[in-house]
Amino acid sequence: MEEYIDKIDLEARRKSAEAIRKVFLKLIDQIKKGEEPRLVIKKRTLANTIYDPAKKMLLLGESKAVRRFFDEGEVKKFMQTVLMASIIYDALVNNEYPTIRDLYYRGKHTIPKLSESDKEINTWDEQDESDAVLRDVEVLTNKLREEMLILSKEKGKVVGDMRIRSGRDVIDLSKMGHGAYAIESTADLIEFLDVNAEFVLVVEKDAVFQQLHRIGFWRKMKCLLVTSAGQPDRATRRFVRRLNEELKLPVYVVADSDPYGFYIYSVFKIGSITLSYESERLATPSARFLGVMMSDVFGDDPPIEELQTSILGNTVDRKALKKRYVEVLRKYGYKKSLDKKPFLSEEERKMFIIRAKQQDIARAIELVGTSVVKDILGFEPKISVKGKGERVKRHPGYPWFRDPRWIKEISIFLYTLAKLEIEAMASKGLKFLAFEYLPSKIETGDYID
Amino acid sequence: MEEYIDKIDLEARRKSAEAIRKVFLKLIDQIKKGEEPRLVIKKRTLANTIYDPAKKMLLLGESKAVRRFFDEGEVKKFMQTVLMASIIYDALVNNEYPTIRDLYYRGKHTIPKLSESDKEINTWDEQDESDAVLRDVEVLTNKLREEMLILSKEKGKVVGDMRIRSGRDVIDLSKMGHGAYAIESTADLIEFLDVNAEFVLVVEKDAVFQQLHRIGFWRKMKCLLVTSAGQPDRATRRFVRRLNEELKLPVYVVADSDPYGFYIYSVFKIGSITLSYESERLATPSARFLGVMMSDVFGDDPPIEELQTSILGNTVDRKALKKRYVEVLRKYGYKKSLDKKPFLSEEERKMFIIRAKQQDIARAIELVGTSVVKDILGFEPKISVKGKGERVKRHPGYPWFRDPRWIKEISIFLYTLAKLEIEAMASKGLKFLAFEYLPSKIETGDYID
Repeated sequence: MEEYIDKIDLEARRKSAEAIRKVFLKLIDQIKKGEEPRLVIKKRTLANTIYDPAKKMLLLGESKAVRRFFDEGEVKKFMQTVLMASIIYDALVNNEYPTIRDLYYRGKHTIPKLSESDKEINTWDEQDESDAVLRDVEVLTNKLREEMLILSKEKGKVVGDMRIRSGRDVIDLSKMGHGAYAIESTADLIEFLDVNAEFVLVVEKDAVFQQLHRIGFWRKMKCLLVTSAGQPDRATRRFVRRLNEELKLPVYVVADSDPYGFYIYSVFKIGSITLSYESERLATPSARFLGVMMSDVFGDDPPIEELQTSILGNTVDRKALKKRYVEVLRKYGYKKSLDKKPFLSEEERKMFIIRAKQQDIARAIELVGTSVVKDILGFEPKISVKGKGERVKRHPGYPWFRDPRWIKEISIFLYTLAKLEIEAMASKGLKFLAFEYLPSKIETGDYID
Repeated sequence: MEEYIDKIDLEARRKSAEAIRKVFLKLIDQIKKGEEPRLVIKKRTLANTIYDPAKKMLLLGESKAVRRFFDEGEVKKFMQTVLMASIIYDALVNNEYPTIRDLYYRGKHTIPKLSESDKEINTWDEQDESDAVLRDVEVLTNKLREEMLILSKEKGKVVGDMRIRSGRDVIDLSKMGHGAYAIESTADLIEFLDVNAEFVLVVEKDAVFQQLHRIGFWRKMKCLLVTSAGQPDRATRRFVRRLNEELKLPVYVVADSDPYGFYIYSVFKIGSITLSYESERLATPSARFLGVMMSDVFGDDPPIEELQTSILGNTVDRKALKKRYVEVLRKYGYKKSLDKKPFLSEEERKMFIIRAKQQDIARAIELVGTSVVKDILGFEPKISVKGKGERVKRHPGYPWFRDPRWIKEISIFLYTLAKLEIEAMASKGLKFLAFEYLPSKIETGDYID
């Protein structure tokens, strides 16, 4: 069977097994010296997750946790970490390819009682718990799970004029017919052979990716076309990052025009809070948000007079709001003129926009923060998200959304309470989307970086 | 731009546009003759969805609906059908590739009032509505939406020793590295060039597909490996059907061992109720359920003495149940001996199984029907599904699950109230899953067809 195992996998296995072995050797050394066995791991807490404005990334800070073997409050976590590391080590040396679900199953058991008075303890109960332990092992060994040959469900696809090597095969990404190349879990093991493309376009939605592929977008525009098929997984993020870093290709992201779409872009660019320790390898700090922008839909002069304020839990003076719009943008440093024309006619807008829900407003508050939203509207919206049954809590916002261009977009969102899907741009005409809207925005530099 | 349009697409466009044109010519003819314009469409109702035991498929019956233009109750549906057909026709002749979301947007508008007393009417409000109209157009024209070049999100992937032509490219599915070929929306336009495989293995879960791919399963077992990545979409179903029908390859499906996994298999095999009009092209009646079976987990002698009956809303005499198990199987025509040994040890079973929830029991009732469940347990379980807040209604069951082998599997499920994921088989060892469990089941014919 070994004949089917790729050399590149064996090399990755060797390196990762070595990293785990180092951790274990340290523990053995502590035991031999009669010291307390302990693991020192960077804390993966919110407090230790720091936005680095220079690197433009969410990173782990320097705060560390010490997992002590003789500490009753720490010993379970100590045991879990050592157990997970040993399961992964075994899988590595046995040429296995576990999934994260696998690792959960492999480690799940009840620890036998040593005496009658002992309590029965499970190693872990739910996958959430084993996933968190796996993240600790990643931080501890400084190896991504993909480097440890751990697989997971992957949705990312790519097409374009590029050749890659994966395993023992050379794959021509320009010869995929109407289908596409589904990116492997271990995106680091892909070798880039040659490329004939000027940029990367990442489309959030798979169906729109297929439309653009089918109409020849990447050929005509000389680009690589990637889809994350929704919230991006790690392999897609790593793949896009490598295209940017190693091939120096600018990356443009296209997502729905709503706070959720903006957030998906931010996962590509900055990283996610849960996985901040991986931003250095997964995030693409120079990624540009190409659209769909609220200002693509409404232009720079949103129809504030149409604002339906009932959902905001307040009444407003629309005239005062119009004045406030300009003032707030100036306050946050917006310097360009406000004369952008919309890509959609008023009629198209009426056909295509979707009314925002309270959870969209909650997401907008999360992006720019409660204080900015208060500045934009002149009051703090009273909203509660269904299911949670509670008023949405105040939020400081994310520093990377405190950009005047984002504040403009969120302002237009809050003044119109409208959302627009990428598909709506294709409904105006696929050729419009592919050969007018997207190229003109790239040419005129109408993106946020 | 036309240079990027494939000939195979143009040919499909021409045929589909012709089919729509025929429908319109008929309408024009009716108008010219002074007759009432009307559309005759096979009813897509549950009552007109019939299981054909000879073809082993869910099909539409012969019952027809007449949509009359002068009937106040029918004119809106008449208008919607004609509108959808004309949008698709326009897209076809303009070389567009709309998605189903697109079609919703393109048709969504308010019909202008003719007089002050008129009510304002929207063409359609939600995508559910336009999707249903699209299904009517499919039935009316006898063209699948894929033949009309309508795209949608697709999740299916394939690898194996096979060459296909898609668009203008020849793709070698054995040279995909660690990645895979993502199947196009329009699976009918794929040309099969040559194949060197003895069967098709369809794995429901993408991560398990990746594991099997990575360990060389399809090379060693000489098969094509396909994943539907969850509930199968139309393109994956059509692709699998074509592999079976045109290349005469037997198809084995592997899904989780629970009533939901069994249902996914049944979608591949029989079709789905919503799309019964397409079963003739999408279903694979000879598809075999390879696993994971409840009898793979527990063997033929389930540990009835462990049955936790509280969830069933009744108490039971476990000894009587053990006798009943054999009697019920005989009653429904199970003729083989009941001596299958499980693939998992008792210890592994304890590690890997997941407790069933009420909704799993509800799904089991849906599969075999209330009367069979009552036969198996000796009483009708009193269950209600969370969220719906109601006792689960009686269900006649699906005829194709009234097979004694399925009744055995559902019996073991109800006597153990346990579920098992495919991943658990990989956790016992990926090599066990790939090179023991799956091959031995194929070799010994341990599947349900």
